[in-house]
Amino acid sequence: MRVHLNTAGAAIPAPGVHRAMAGYLAAEVELGPYEAEAAHAADLERRVYERLGRVIGARAEDIALFGSATDAWCRIVCHLRVPAGSRFWLTPYEYAGNLIALQRLAQRCGGRLEVVPTRPGGDLDLDWMRSRLDERVALVSVVHMPSGLGVVQPVEEVGALLAGSEAVYVVDACQTVGQLPVDVTAIGCHALTAAGRKFLRGPRGSGFAYVRPHLWDRIEVPFHDLHVARADSLHSHRLTTETAARFETAERNNAVVLGLLAAAEHALARPDGAPAEVFGALLETVCQQPGARLLAPGARRAGIVAFTHRDASPELIRDGLAECGVTGWVGLGAHTPLSLAGVDRFVRTSVHHYNTLADIETFGRALRWTTR
Amino acid sequence: MRVHLNTAGAAIPAPGVHRAMAGYLAAEVELGPYEAEAAHAADLERRVYERLGRVIGARAEDIALFGSATDAWCRIVCHLRVPAGSRFWLTPYEYAGNLIALQRLAQRCGGRLEVVPTRPGGDLDLDWMRSRLDERVALVSVVHMPSGLGVVQPVEEVGALLAGSEAVYVVDACQTVGQLPVDVTAIGCHALTAAGRKFLRGPRGSGFAYVRPHLWDRIEVPFHDLHVARADSLHSHRLTTETAARFETAERNNAVVLGLLAAAEHALARPDGAPAEVFGALLETVCQQPGARLLAPGARRAGIVAFTHRDASPELIRDGLAECGVTGWVGLGAHTPLSLAGVDRFVRTSVHHYNTLADIETFGRALRWTTR
Repeated sequence: MRVHLNTAGAAIPAPGVHRAMAGYLAAEVELGPYEAEAAHAADLERRVYERLGRVIGARAEDIALFGSATDAWCRIVCHLRVPAGSRFWLTPYEYAGNLIALQRLAQRCGGRLEVVPTRPGGDLDLDWMRSRLDERVALVSVVHMPSGLGVVQPVEEVGALLAGSEAVYVVDACQTVGQLPVDVTAIGCHALTAAGRKFLRGPRGSGFAYVRPHLWDRIEVPFHDLHVARADSLHSHRLTTETAARFETAERNNAVVLGLLAAAEHALARPDGAPAEVFGALLETVCQQPGARLLAPGARRAGIVAFTHRDASPELIRDGLAECGVTGWVGLGAHTPLSLAGVDRFVRTSVHHYNTLADIETFGRALRWTTR
Repeated sequence: MRVHLNTAGAAIPAPGVHRAMAGYLAAEVELGPYEAEAAHAADLERRVYERLGRVIGARAEDIALFGSATDAWCRIVCHLRVPAGSRFWLTPYEYAGNLIALQRLAQRCGGRLEVVPTRPGGDLDLDWMRSRLDERVALVSVVHMPSGLGVVQPVEEVGALLAGSEAVYVVDACQTVGQLPVDVTAIGCHALTAAGRKFLRGPRGSGFAYVRPHLWDRIEVPFHDLHVARADSLHSHRLTTETAARFETAERNNAVVLGLLAAAEHALARPDGAPAEVFGALLETVCQQPGARLLAPGARRAGIVAFTHRDASPELIRDGLAECGVTGWVGLGAHTPLSLAGVDRFVRTSVHHYNTLADIETFGRALRWTTR
C-alpha cells in the first residue's frame, strides 16, 4: 500500500465512489445509457444536489454541477454583469486560472484588479480591506486555501467585513471542502466553488458551485443547453429552470455524477481532514530536515506542506519518495503566481484523514534517504 | 438481450469502452489519480487526439476535447469574433441548443439570424444560398443530421458553395460521426463538432471539436485554464498551447477520455452505421404501420426514423415497445424547433451497425402489439 501524500492534487477515491461508477457503467451496457439514466433519476436529479448542498450548508436549489472547480468558478465569475470601471479584489493566494479569468473580466468592463496586501507574516490585511471598501468594489475573490500552500484564509472574517456592501463575494474552496468545515452561511459568500477530486475524494472531472439566488440574474452565461432553456422562436428563448442548475450544460457522464454523490455521502459521514497530530508531524518532519525550506506564509495552516531543498530538486525528491512508496507532487509557482513568483517549482505534500503517523514516519525516512 | 433503437440518444458503448474505463478507475485507486494519469500520458495527451482526428480526417493538433458536443459547439461558436451587423445562416434543422447560442451571438454583435429555406420536399435550397451569399454572412451553421430526423444534409455541397467566401462554416456532426463518412477536408468546414456517446459508441459526457488553425485567433473564450495558459503578472497572461486544445479546460475525467479513445479505435476498425437493408426495413415497418405518420422531409435519409401515430401517444408506444424488449425514445419537437414546431412529441427510433433485420422484425411485432 502506497503512502498517498497528494490529496491536494487528487485523493484516493472514497470507498463506494468507484463501485457506484462501475455499477452504473454496467447498467448502461445492459439497459442503454439513456435508460440507465432514467432508472437513476432520483440520484442524478435530486440527491446529488441535496447531499453536496448539505456538505457546505447550502440548499440543493443553489447548487450547480460542473466538470471541475475551475470550470465552476470561471462560468460564474466570467459572466457576471458588473458596472464599467469596477474594482476587483483578489488575494496574493489567487489561483492562476482564476486570475486569468479576472483579467478577462476586468478587460471586458474596463475594470481594475487590486491585490489585498498581507501583513508581515503573510496574513491578509483586513484593515486595508475595511478602510478601502466602497461601492466600486464589485467583486471580492478569496481562495480558502491555495493549492500550493497550506494556509487557511479567514473567509468568515472577510464575509463579515463585506456584509452589507455591494461586492459579490466569491470563495474558491477547492482545497478545503472535505477537510475543513465549510458553511456558506457562516462564510457569508455569494458563490463558492469546489472540486470533486481533492479532499472530497470524488471522481476526477467533477466540480460544483453554490450560487446564491440573487446572483442568478446577474450572471449571463453565453449559452444555455436544452435541459434549462427553450427556444421559443427563431429570435427568442427563455430559461425554464428555477435553480442554479441553469448554469450547467445538459450532458455529463452520469457515472461521474454518481461517484460524486458517493463522495458527498462519505464526506457527510466523515467530514474531517487529517488529524492535527498527523499534519503537525508532517510539518515538523519537513522543518527538521536539513536543507529544507518551508513555503508557509500565514498563521493558520492545514492539509498541505510545501517546501524546497537547498541541494535537491523537487523532481529528484518526488522521484526518491516514489521509490520508497510515498506519493508526493511537484508544485509550480506559476499556479499561485502572486505569492510564489520567485519559486519555480517545489515539493508539495498533503495529508487527509486516511494518512497516519506511520505514513509520516515512512515519509520522513524516505525524505532523509532521498536528500542524503 | 434488448433491441436498442436509441443510438441517436446514446449508443450501447463499443466493446472495450467500459473495460478501458474500469481498468483506469482501478489504477486510480492503486496509484493515485494524478499518478495513474502520468502512467497513461501517451494515450491521454496524444493518442486520443490522433485517433479522433483520424475518424474525421483531421490532424491531431486541430482537435479539442469537451464534455459534450453542445459544449464543443457553443464554446467555439459563442466566442467567435464577428463584425457588428453580421448575418448568420442556419438551417431549419438547427438544434435548439445551437439556436440559443446563435441568438446570443447575434444579440452581442447586433447581427441577424437567417434561415436557409428548403425546397418542396425538404432539401436545403442551395440556389438561395448561392444567390444571397455576400461578405456580411459571417457564419454558416449546418447540422449534418438533426437529432429528431434522419435526414442527411448536403454538407459537402454547402462547403463547395462557401469556398472562397469570408463565412465561417461550422458543421454539427453529432449524429453522423460513427455512422456516415465524415471528412473535414471533403466537407470544407472550418469547425466540426461531434458527440462521443452516439454513433461513435463512446462514453457519455464526452465530445470533441475540429477547429481549423486560422480560426484559433478569432475565438476568444472567456477563460483559459493552466494547461494552456500562464499568468505572467497581475495584469497579463499568454497562451502556451499551440494546438486547438487551447479551448479546453484542464480538468477532465480521464476514464471518460480513455473510453472515448477506445470508441475512436473501434470506429476506425468499423466505420459503418446500420446496413442499408436494416435502415430500409425500419423505414418500411413504420410506413406500413396503419395510423403511423413518418416525420421525414428531405431526400437523403439514414439512421433515424421518427414518427407519430394517429391513435397512440409517443409515450404509450415507447412504453409498449419497452415491454417487448425494444428501446425507443420520445423525441421533442422543441429540440428542432424550426422544422418541428408543430410536433410536440414523437417516437424516435434509430439503428446502428449492431442492429439486425431480426431486431426490426421484433420492433415491428412490438409496434403492432402496442398500437393494436
